[in-house]
Amino acid sequence: MTSPSDPARSGGPRRAALVGLGLIGGSIGLALRSRGWHVTGRDRDPAAVDAAVAAGVVDAAGEDASAEVTFVATPVGEVAGEVARVLGQAGLAADAAVTDVGGVKAPVVAAVGDPRFVGGHPMAGSEQVGLGGADPGLFVGATWVLTPTAATDPSAYALVRTVAASLGAEVLSLSPEHHDALVALVSHVPHLAAATLMNLADRRAEEHAALLRLAAGGFRDMTRVAAGSPGIWPDVCVENAPAIVAGLDALVSELGRVRDQVAAHDRHGLLATLRRAADARRALPAGAVRPERLVELRVPVPDRPGVLAEITTTAGDLGVNISDLEIAHSAEATGGVLVVVVDAEAAERFAAALTARGYRPGARPLA
Amino acid sequence: MTSPSDPARSGGPRRAALVGLGLIGGSIGLALRSRGWHVTGRDRDPAAVDAAVAAGVVDAAGEDASAEVTFVATPVGEVAGEVARVLGQAGLAADAAVTDVGGVKAPVVAAVGDPRFVGGHPMAGSEQVGLGGADPGLFVGATWVLTPTAATDPSAYALVRTVAASLGAEVLSLSPEHHDALVALVSHVPHLAAATLMNLADRRAEEHAALLRLAAGGFRDMTRVAAGSPGIWPDVCVENAPAIVAGLDALVSELGRVRDQVAAHDRHGLLATLRRAADARRALPAGAVRPERLVELRVPVPDRPGVLAEITTTAGDLGVNISDLEIAHSAEATGGVLVVVVDAEAAERFAAALTARGYRPGARPLA
Repeated sequence: MTSPSDPARSGGPRRAALVGLGLIGGSIGLALRSRGWHVTGRDRDPAAVDAAVAAGVVDAAGEDASAEVTFVATPVGEVAGEVARVLGQAGLAADAAVTDVGGVKAPVVAAVGDPRFVGGHPMAGSEQVGLGGADPGLFVGATWVLTPTAATDPSAYALVRTVAASLGAEVLSLSPEHHDALVALVSHVPHLAAATLMNLADRRAEEHAALLRLAAGGFRDMTRVAAGSPGIWPDVCVENAPAIVAGLDALVSELGRVRDQVAAHDRHGLLATLRRAADARRALPAGAVRPERLVELRVPVPDRPGVLAEITTTAGDLGVNISDLEIAHSAEATGGVLVVVVDAEAAERFAAALTARGYRPGARPLA
Repeated sequence: MTSPSDPARSGGPRRAALVGLGLIGGSIGLALRSRGWHVTGRDRDPAAVDAAVAAGVVDAAGEDASAEVTFVATPVGEVAGEVARVLGQAGLAADAAVTDVGGVKAPVVAAVGDPRFVGGHPMAGSEQVGLGGADPGLFVGATWVLTPTAATDPSAYALVRTVAASLGAEVLSLSPEHHDALVALVSHVPHLAAATLMNLADRRAEEHAALLRLAAGGFRDMTRVAAGSPGIWPDVCVENAPAIVAGLDALVSELGRVRDQVAAHDRHGLLATLRRAADARRALPAGAVRPERLVELRVPVPDRPGVLAEITTTAGDLGVNISDLEIAHSAEATGGVLVVVVDAEAAERFAAALTARGYRPGARPLA
């Protein structure tokens, strides 16, 4: 394995840095330190830095040019600037990687435009806000999206992928644009819908004091996300505006169809609508399932940019979970072999998709 | 107290009957039996009756003309017919009361048109479905709406109210029409919105296998209600169609406003929208709070129909929780005194509202 992040290279512990010490940054710090990493951190708020040191979230305050990976966990609008600052540090190792945790990827990835940056988005949260809610187990079983592009350095991608997986996350690679379109549908639009439902009820509650006393479990579940800190959302909405507008338009159109079913007393249509939703909700994966049987695909890869991004986002687009990934020879030399471990059930369609793209994967079941 | 439901009148245990042995009917049965009641039950499904007897949800299968109260816990479309059947039983006591648990009240109350019927709606549910999910504690702390009208017999209302409160519920009285408008906003419209969000995501998931792997906690919370059994919903939607259509129209209009904020990159407007929702969600009452200080209002009431409904729904409309209620003399004789116990904080505005309606309440703090 040609990963540049050989733990033995310095003799000391592996080193990481954090920029932004909120819920996600703090959780990454705790999780890394519990695995023996040395973690340095900074934040615009000096009090957050002091608290992070006191809570054992970081070993030390400040920057660390010797960090092999830096996580930028700031609001999405500040990511590009902070990444540039990290990459501009004097003495930074040539093989250092930087990633972020923002909820919108395409504008950030485009703004950074550096091969050492790998866009990331751990799909984990909590009703907690800020460092006080930091939890080293936050990422266990969570999906952590990475958004490599043709320009992404394969070694940087492999490093970030390995570290994210080591925190217990299931890594899913998608193109930045695909990520943004999908999270608009499963996160941004639902969040705005929850806030809208809450505001609608609240406005009527001014006339009808009884209303909120009728808010039972279903309403509470539906509006729970709306209780979260609103601070990050205006930026997310603006950065991902096209996908969110499209998602809201689809939601409004679909609600109009349901409204017409209600108005027309269309019991049959309503039952079909609700039954489809019930079936889909019950089938929603209850978290990443560790597959019982795994298959190793060995894919000879040519020496051209974007091969790793193409192969991993092909898996992501198919919903195929990559359990392990190794670059057997550097893809930057004269070509090499990419070793990808996937669920046996998914191996055939993944291999077929790779073949369709001109690759020649070979499969081998793992014990 | 002139309640007709004197437990001593027969010498034996108090007797109740259930029609419909699903989650709600079964939970009422368990809760009543745990408080010493004799409970008889029937269901269209003979297997449900056998299961209810075996599980100790009812003492006996069938009808019970000597039941002082019968709970009709069938789908909403069957309530009126079942109530008529109960009230038509040979040998039924003149002071027997009947109530239901359906999610829509105005059409049912209008269809029944009998003073012995008191419309009801316990706002309690569970992800469980059917008798297997029955829980004697289901109503503890839940809001249980009653919908008395001018035609409702005060004794029937007082009886149903007392029994519902004895199961741990906070009873809230509203007019049937007001109930239906409010539950459209806090239950029916949110339910349809959850189903619509789920269907939207599911349809896209056919093209994008990765999508549902991105569904994190917020999406799961928002769509949880959509997993419930769809069977009862077409009836609920049809029975409450006008209020639901109005609620969906308001939701669509409001979502359009948010969509325009996103499209216009209106960070300020979005922050205001989300902040208002967050404040409202955090302020949502976390369940009925037992007030520390209570006030007893004694309200001389004339001998005319609808006085009890008017007074109790006035409290409901104001969101005032009635902790206890007693008819000191029969309102059906030459007038009497209604004794109502409310939270001290609410006593003044409730008394003012009663005064505005021509009553002359007297207040006395309770120890």
